[in-house]
Amino acid sequence: MSYSPRAFRALSFHDATGAFAAGSDSPRAYLERCLETIAAREPVVRAWVVMNEAGAREAADASTARWKAGRPLSPIDGMPVGIKDLLETRDMPTQMGCTAYRGNFPKRDNAAVWALREAGAVVLGKTVTTELGGAHPGPTTNPFDQARTPGGSSSGSAAAVAARMVPAALGTQVGGSVIRPASYCGNVALKPTQGGINRGERQATSMSTTGIHAGCIEDMWQVAIEIAKRAGGDPGRPGLFGPAAPPAARRPAVIGVMETEGWAALDAASKAAFEGLLEALRAQGVAVLRRGDHPLLDAFETSLTGVQAMTSAITGWENHWLFRNLVAQDPEGISARSKAVLAMAGKMTPEDYRLRLFQREEVRARHAALAPVVDALVAPASPGPAPLWAGDVPGQPLKPRPTGDAVFNTPSSGLGAPAVTVPLCAVGGMPMGIQVVAQPHMDAQATAIARWMFETLEPATA
Amino acid sequence: MSYSPRAFRALSFHDATGAFAAGSDSPRAYLERCLETIAAREPVVRAWVVMNEAGAREAADASTARWKAGRPLSPIDGMPVGIKDLLETRDMPTQMGCTAYRGNFPKRDNAAVWALREAGAVVLGKTVTTELGGAHPGPTTNPFDQARTPGGSSSGSAAAVAARMVPAALGTQVGGSVIRPASYCGNVALKPTQGGINRGERQATSMSTTGIHAGCIEDMWQVAIEIAKRAGGDPGRPGLFGPAAPPAARRPAVIGVMETEGWAALDAASKAAFEGLLEALRAQGVAVLRRGDHPLLDAFETSLTGVQAMTSAITGWENHWLFRNLVAQDPEGISARSKAVLAMAGKMTPEDYRLRLFQREEVRARHAALAPVVDALVAPASPGPAPLWAGDVPGQPLKPRPTGDAVFNTPSSGLGAPAVTVPLCAVGGMPMGIQVVAQPHMDAQATAIARWMFETLEPATA
Repeated sequence: MSYSPRAFRALSFHDATGAFAAGSDSPRAYLERCLETIAAREPVVRAWVVMNEAGAREAADASTARWKAGRPLSPIDGMPVGIKDLLETRDMPTQMGCTAYRGNFPKRDNAAVWALREAGAVVLGKTVTTELGGAHPGPTTNPFDQARTPGGSSSGSAAAVAARMVPAALGTQVGGSVIRPASYCGNVALKPTQGGINRGERQATSMSTTGIHAGCIEDMWQVAIEIAKRAGGDPGRPGLFGPAAPPAARRPAVIGVMETEGWAALDAASKAAFEGLLEALRAQGVAVLRRGDHPLLDAFETSLTGVQAMTSAITGWENHWLFRNLVAQDPEGISARSKAVLAMAGKMTPEDYRLRLFQREEVRARHAALAPVVDALVAPASPGPAPLWAGDVPGQPLKPRPTGDAVFNTPSSGLGAPAVTVPLCAVGGMPMGIQVVAQPHMDAQATAIARWMFETLEPATA
Repeated sequence: MSYSPRAFRALSFHDATGAFAAGSDSPRAYLERCLETIAAREPVVRAWVVMNEAGAREAADASTARWKAGRPLSPIDGMPVGIKDLLETRDMPTQMGCTAYRGNFPKRDNAAVWALREAGAVVLGKTVTTELGGAHPGPTTNPFDQARTPGGSSSGSAAAVAARMVPAALGTQVGGSVIRPASYCGNVALKPTQGGINRGERQATSMSTTGIHAGCIEDMWQVAIEIAKRAGGDPGRPGLFGPAAPPAARRPAVIGVMETEGWAALDAASKAAFEGLLEALRAQGVAVLRRGDHPLLDAFETSLTGVQAMTSAITGWENHWLFRNLVAQDPEGISARSKAVLAMAGKMTPEDYRLRLFQREEVRARHAALAPVVDALVAPASPGPAPLWAGDVPGQPLKPRPTGDAVFNTPSSGLGAPAVTVPLCAVGGMPMGIQVVAQPHMDAQATAIARWMFETLEPATA
């Protein structure tokens, strides 16, 4: 099937709650429809590692009773959600796509998972992650073409939402692991400001965030804010700012184009689709600043040169204590791809790491300088649609980037800035997202602008 | 026995390395002397949870061979060290003084422990911590009076150094858990700048640091910098700054007195000892600024009102995901004292937490304003000498603060500022430390000033 942004009807939860209140639908019935979809599509999509159907049905029944009584715990009471298998859940193992963690079952709830349960959400199962959130892929396929990757590392969460198995799922991003798979799978997604959503036990790296995949902006925001209202942000961070209901659409006055290191290598069709959207923005009266139009935008783009190497080095160093210990415990416990990261980090010194942090501060300063210049930045959410992926070939060198290239995502990760992607392009019959990147803590503004774009602009097809 | 700062001979390692090089002593022989001291004193002091004597002897033999060959890995090659039982060690369990963690044996090395091994140090054993680093005490007694607490939460590390069992030990501080026990036990100690030493897996709270207890300034600094050279700082932090060898003593020109919320309740003898030291500073030509002498110092002190409640609230909130999960898994897994922290945090909202963070930023700003005014701040390292502690009485209400009061320590914890304590007072025959607090990242300056004070000033007795 060929993907079309307007023809595709993503699963929504907020549309259903009116019927829950009226009694013509229920969270239990909603869950059963999700389970039917999963039964139909999971054999090919392979989004899930494990599910707790009995627990989900019990939670959905409790939610049904609350809606009937007119006392839902929140607007997402009864929403079935998938949890990326990096985050701990008290009722399911947390195996992180990693041999060394096979059977790992800490029986704890990650802070965001705990908050979801407190808000009445139905924690349905754990979704496939690449190994430890890195480059080594799991079995998930792209719901729009099984020969293609769903992206990573939040592969299962992205695919489960795109396959209409659940209306929302938690992912995590350290390079491009929320926004890129959402782009490949035609989802809406939020990668919040660094520290905006409490990562719970996952504090090992300085650039990871817990993000939301959803079928629509309303569900995306509502999940984010219901978590933040209960679990807050990371230790030492003020947490997600924004309204208790989805931000209204907002037309920006000035948008800046963020080319990143990926621009030169962007394929012609994807570039054409993106240029089409810029044209549509201008047609709506939005001023579009490009490279060469403003010295501060140019200075920012210049500072993005090398950002992908910078983020890889920073995260590699931060993760290498974990990787070292895993290899010490079980030399075969992690993949060759993860061992390559360990080898790279093992050659770094604390001084190398420190210099990378200072480089990151410089990029952040150049981004902060744009606050009075543009309302937000826009960019493709991935360098084109999902690439083909047929698996590693035994005996041959490992292919780089089996889940796609994070080149358009590492800037917002490095910046600690919020990014929202919306499915506004179709390229070669596959989805490609457009992302809106705002200043740190302006998650609601990024969401409002992305919402306006999604509701106003004609999608671009190329 | 009555403690006297000058009569007490703390154990030192750096004094021994000349003999290692010359062949008249060896790390193995040094270790055996430590083990003899432990055998003699541990039945009363109870500093250790578990020891790996065989592994330590093996490591000491390897170190002995390196010194003989003239190729030590670092100046602390062969140094026996104790590791607070909150930090993971691959060869010993990590039980955190907590029933819920009994038998917990993750077989991983904390980043700092890994760095110590890389530097050739001999990881001898795990030292007693209060439950999860909180208020509920372990069995350790004060080496100078077994009726008194050694302080907490780094109880075993402080006592092991004071009892001359090891020359240095790792502690952690989130409120006053390094500096206060060091004060009570007559140790030298460094609580580094927030993030200065990589906490490894222990990233859950925004104000905890890994710190060093030692018998002398030289060993304290050398341990800190050897760890930092290898493991760096926390994710996202530039790590400890300072020279590769212990900073030379440095006379300050201007010292500010930091009274904190604890000043009014400081007992007369402790106050007299501290005032005696200020007099000694003045006699050395150091200008001493007190409350009322400078408006910025007054503004800083004003902002410290409520800091103890602020740090408790912040840390309580940050820890409550852990505590919640422990109670969910095993309702009797944590003490009533820790449950009280959970109950307090459970009443907070993310908005309460956010406001506490902004309060902390304000205190930090007022501290930063003092950078051009004073070279450092000095204060008692604890509100007097170690208090008596006879244990909880079954059936009676829990006594508050069984390991003493952190009121003089929560400021530097909240500030993220380095603190160095040196044993410069004896009050009622027990040690009391004086701490030097500097601006963040000025750990070497705090150490240099503390060293000068320790080497120059006559200790005060009261």
